[in-house]
Amino acid sequence: MRVRIEITRRPEIADPQGTTIRRALADLGHEQVERVRVDRVIHLDIAGDDRSAIESQANEMCRQVLANPVLEDFSVEVLG
Amino acid sequence: MRVRIEITRRPEIADPQGTTIRRALADLGHEQVERVRVDRVIHLDIAGDDRSAIESQANEMCRQVLANPVLEDFSVEVLG
Repeated sequence: MRVRIEITRRPEIADPQGTTIRRALADLGHEQVERVRVDRVIHLDIAGDDRSAIESQANEMCRQVLANPVLEDFSVEVLG
Repeated sequence: MRVRIEITRRPEIADPQGTTIRRALADLGHEQVERVRVDRVIHLDIAGDDRSAIESQANEMCRQVLANPVLEDFSVEVLG
């Protein structure tokens, strides 16, 4: 099954990559860009057909290794 | 206006970050994960209220700096 995980930096946590991109865009003349945030999307192909088991496995992987629980939130969606 | 850009590596291009994550997950016992791909989502806040102008600005930013046209595809969505 295909699983889509979106990992977002918490709003109160600074995003240095986003800030760097905003400056690069301004240097190229795109001063109208006021804010940039960069998130990650991780697509997993997981063997099995038990949707609920796969969803809980993916949540465990996020807590263990995919997301940083101090800085980031995550959402798991089983696409089927 | 808020713009959401999803940047995906083309399917035929290797994803070393995804491969590394797959190995790390296998080491933790998640051998059922067969494939991992990592994409980026960039959220932009852009000043202005002309939806179509903002969409074309965001496409230009992707071509100029946000995406690597050799390795990646992108999609732009103006959220409003």
